[in-house]
Amino acid sequence: MVGRVYLVGAGPGDPELLTLKAHRLIQSCDAIVYDRLVSEDVLKLAPFDAECFDVGKRPHDHPVPQDDINELLVSLALRGLSVVRLKGGDPLMFGRGGEEALTLQAGGIPFEIVPGITAAQGVAAAAMVPLTHRGVASSVRYLTGHCRADAELDFDWDGLADSDTTLVVYMGLANIIEICRELIDHGRSSDTPVLVVSRATRPEERRFSATLGTIPCAVKATGFESPVLFIIGEVAALSKYQEIPTDALQINHFAAAAE
Amino acid sequence: MVGRVYLVGAGPGDPELLTLKAHRLIQSCDAIVYDRLVSEDVLKLAPFDAECFDVGKRPHDHPVPQDDINELLVSLALRGLSVVRLKGGDPLMFGRGGEEALTLQAGGIPFEIVPGITAAQGVAAAAMVPLTHRGVASSVRYLTGHCRADAELDFDWDGLADSDTTLVVYMGLANIIEICRELIDHGRSSDTPVLVVSRATRPEERRFSATLGTIPCAVKATGFESPVLFIIGEVAALSKYQEIPTDALQINHFAAAAE
Repeated sequence: MVGRVYLVGAGPGDPELLTLKAHRLIQSCDAIVYDRLVSEDVLKLAPFDAECFDVGKRPHDHPVPQDDINELLVSLALRGLSVVRLKGGDPLMFGRGGEEALTLQAGGIPFEIVPGITAAQGVAAAAMVPLTHRGVASSVRYLTGHCRADAELDFDWDGLADSDTTLVVYMGLANIIEICRELIDHGRSSDTPVLVVSRATRPEERRFSATLGTIPCAVKATGFESPVLFIIGEVAALSKYQEIPTDALQINHFAAAAE
Repeated sequence: MVGRVYLVGAGPGDPELLTLKAHRLIQSCDAIVYDRLVSEDVLKLAPFDAECFDVGKRPHDHPVPQDDINELLVSLALRGLSVVRLKGGDPLMFGRGGEEALTLQAGGIPFEIVPGITAAQGVAAAAMVPLTHRGVASSVRYLTGHCRADAELDFDWDGLADSDTTLVVYMGLANIIEICRELIDHGRSSDTPVLVVSRATRPEERRFSATLGTIPCAVKATGFESPVLFIIGEVAALSKYQEIPTDALQINHFAAAAE
């Protein structure tokens, strides 16, 4: 009797941002296979006797290669278990959920995909920054700033520089300086507002706001821990109706002084 | 004693895709102000004695103007009520949540924003189409095909034509023919796969798949009811590992015959 695999989005961190469906599946699974970005408060919801597998991937430090994760999911299902494959955010948004789905499909394993609140939406809600806003941003684009160690960033920079589009950069800490430079070189104003959020929706969340021109040195000055998300665009200035934490003001001051 | 307003995302339709937080707030509110895209199954969760306001907006038929909705939220909060402002999908993604937030801020009304699963993610999970996929799509962009009756579609078409980006078009039924034509004119292949989903995650969900070149006449041939979402890009071809409903095959046949 073959089991079933659920590729489940765990949302940005706050357990209350799990979907009802994710919550139900986590509470009733036999095995749980989870990533680094899944918070401990979410993992606590699993049954005490569920088999737990930490396959967390850190940049430049991949404890479990993707192929091994794929094999693990198949082998657990073949033992007849109900398996929750838990990913930070949404499984189909920079989560390699598509690759795991293709493996399960090829192996004849029944599976289902459960969406999760992606980091961009968690950050937007917490910081009160609309991703689209009438007259300010008519579309929003998500990209990842992370690429393999030997690869270069390869984007259509002209397209990214469109001022009517909000850009959200996932995992951008390593390459944000180059991203900002390219956007400015391709015509996006250096005064474009940027909101930077580390560990969104968790108790240790930190944010600051600056501009495309000042963000690189501000980021250098901070000890932000990943995951870090960047929201780039005029909408980021609307976060002024949110109280700005003291350390953000200090960072902005530092960035201004360093120019 | 002033109440509090929660701008809450109701997700794409399936009540199980509500977040735990949205679920808790809906079950304990004094008043609920909801849009057309919120499903009845979600509304049923509100307390039997909650005051309910349908401010549903239909294209070319706006029963309650945005200014009146803003005023309603303020007046309910000033009566000391706990108010849930419930929107389909996510409140900050094509939901005008930013405008309501600015109004509440200006009126000194305490408020909070609760993200929801946006339609794109609900559709992607249900149809098993990854929005990003290594080697296929490195970024994803959301846009709305809806614009005011007297306005023209105004996009950076060159940017939209980037073949490494998955495009998701919300509310695109009215303008999908022009969108497809412009994308092809700006260099995107007419063979680019497109997945069309109507009423995603609801019992009456319908989907079909075609290409940029065949979608306009296929859409004309269907009686799809809004909301309709289009996923445009190579990732849409990965939905082949999903069973294709019979009517989709008929539609594709029709589209091919009409060429």
